[in-house]
Amino acid sequence: MSLSEFSIIEEFFTSKSNAGLCPIVGIGDDCAVLDVPADKQLAVSTDTLVEGVHFLPKSDPELLGHKVLAVNLSDLAAMGATPAWASLAITLPSIDKAWLSLFSKGFFSLAKRHSLQLIGGDTTRGPLSITVNIMGLLPKHQRLTRAGAQLGDGIYVSGFIGNAGLGLKNARAGGFDARDKDLLSYLKPNPKITLGQALLNVASSCIDISDGLSADLNHILKASGVGATVWHEELPLTHSVRQNIEEVGDVLWPYSTGDDYELCFTMPDAAYKGIQEKLAPYQISKIGVIERQKGLRIKMATGEVATLNKGYDHFNVE
Amino acid sequence: MSLSEFSIIEEFFTSKSNAGLCPIVGIGDDCAVLDVPADKQLAVSTDTLVEGVHFLPKSDPELLGHKVLAVNLSDLAAMGATPAWASLAITLPSIDKAWLSLFSKGFFSLAKRHSLQLIGGDTTRGPLSITVNIMGLLPKHQRLTRAGAQLGDGIYVSGFIGNAGLGLKNARAGGFDARDKDLLSYLKPNPKITLGQALLNVASSCIDISDGLSADLNHILKASGVGATVWHEELPLTHSVRQNIEEVGDVLWPYSTGDDYELCFTMPDAAYKGIQEKLAPYQISKIGVIERQKGLRIKMATGEVATLNKGYDHFNVE
Repeated sequence: MSLSEFSIIEEFFTSKSNAGLCPIVGIGDDCAVLDVPADKQLAVSTDTLVEGVHFLPKSDPELLGHKVLAVNLSDLAAMGATPAWASLAITLPSIDKAWLSLFSKGFFSLAKRHSLQLIGGDTTRGPLSITVNIMGLLPKHQRLTRAGAQLGDGIYVSGFIGNAGLGLKNARAGGFDARDKDLLSYLKPNPKITLGQALLNVASSCIDISDGLSADLNHILKASGVGATVWHEELPLTHSVRQNIEEVGDVLWPYSTGDDYELCFTMPDAAYKGIQEKLAPYQISKIGVIERQKGLRIKMATGEVATLNKGYDHFNVE
Repeated sequence: MSLSEFSIIEEFFTSKSNAGLCPIVGIGDDCAVLDVPADKQLAVSTDTLVEGVHFLPKSDPELLGHKVLAVNLSDLAAMGATPAWASLAITLPSIDKAWLSLFSKGFFSLAKRHSLQLIGGDTTRGPLSITVNIMGLLPKHQRLTRAGAQLGDGIYVSGFIGNAGLGLKNARAGGFDARDKDLLSYLKPNPKITLGQALLNVASSCIDISDGLSADLNHILKASGVGATVWHEELPLTHSVRQNIEEVGDVLWPYSTGDDYELCFTMPDAAYKGIQEKLAPYQISKIGVIERQKGLRIKMATGEVATLNKGYDHFNVE
């Protein structure tokens, strides 16, 4: 006898995260019931990953379990929120116990690290896709948003840019090498939860880099009603990404690749000086400045300026 | 130029529900931010509908927009919760403005009726499927759950059973007739929100009938650690469903059909007498009794007893 929908949920997804805020009613009823502490607000986000669009066919299920949660945690990081609860809606062509076991291993390993509780889900039959709905907590009246960047604010990014895009390129070329750090950036992103928390009440705007630096920074610019110049030479690039720029012959390549899940944020120079030491572990780079003139300008050392007012689009770009 | 992901969300899904609890941050940032009133708990549920599994290919988009929200509202109804917020994750093979316009019309028409606010979403490319994550509010320390049915409690259902299943059968047979009330039951279910609210603090257990009466009542029995007898002749059946039973020659047919989205609940007879008048608009029928002996028994007028310990299963049944 094949497994029923109900035993899937029970077997693979019940009570594996034992840290964090326990739901009053958890998995197994029509709804979960949650108590939001009186001094907190709820931050909520949803992201879907579809096979063949957001991840390659026959992806490693354990890495996929990690990634689907990581991209949702990254949305909480961008708001400065602390992870609390998640629901998992998983559509599968058929039941594969080995696949489910590995997927749930990857999912719960990351959930546990962030004291996140799985509070519900739905298992359906169909082409493979996974939707996570994530909920985090914010102190009342505090949050990071895309709106709020002010003239003269510095523009900052954490970590390095373009590595996940390079990893995807390597994966497509068939180069699955466990020692490939770029591939690991793509397959196993590390959401910047504690960085987001550290930026609460300090950064004037924040976003996570999921669609690519130019697309995501443009979201900040649009929401804040401002423009920006990025100094190309200040962009934090690893040797491998610099090499790839030479190979493809496109200096703007790292601006258009997604999946980095670093944070991009703005604040006045004085504010940055105040928390520079606290932010040291996150390898923060100042890459530009907020300006009155709308649009995103990339300024090269040669004095040349490129305009990048668009980014990756799920429907327009393969 | 085709529409971008961002303009889809903006064009079809922003600020169309103007009633209800406004989010502090709504659609368009990395997360929505919500204030849960201090005297309330949050009820949360997720349901996915996949084309070809949960709805027929080429379904009417306006009815689909209604249905995907209705099945999620029904989960809130089963907990006694009041609708507040929802997120919509929609996966589409390609952008079809006419389809999106009709889908959002159906979705928002029902959302408005329940003062529900759309607070976020994700639009991705892939085989058509829709996931809604819904959030409702409950007074602190109050909720209906599947657990709690007690020995001797009556078993009640609202409305009629089997009509949606018959509607699906008619639709599959190609009988799209706008006057077919069974088809309408299937395509445009009416979630029993006010009934669920009326049952808070009164019913000992509650579930919505989505997978079929036998499957859903079995969930109550299992969660409550009890068994039940249902008196077949008390099942509320319309003339059309009675006719279909004769056609298919299976008296148990209405127990296995899903999608009714009526409520099934339990309570002592004395409690029912106390709210019988209040429940009159919902056409409540007492169909059986909770017993110590595990399992679900269907008792016929002939004295014959059938045992139904299983129900519809997304992976086992076509």
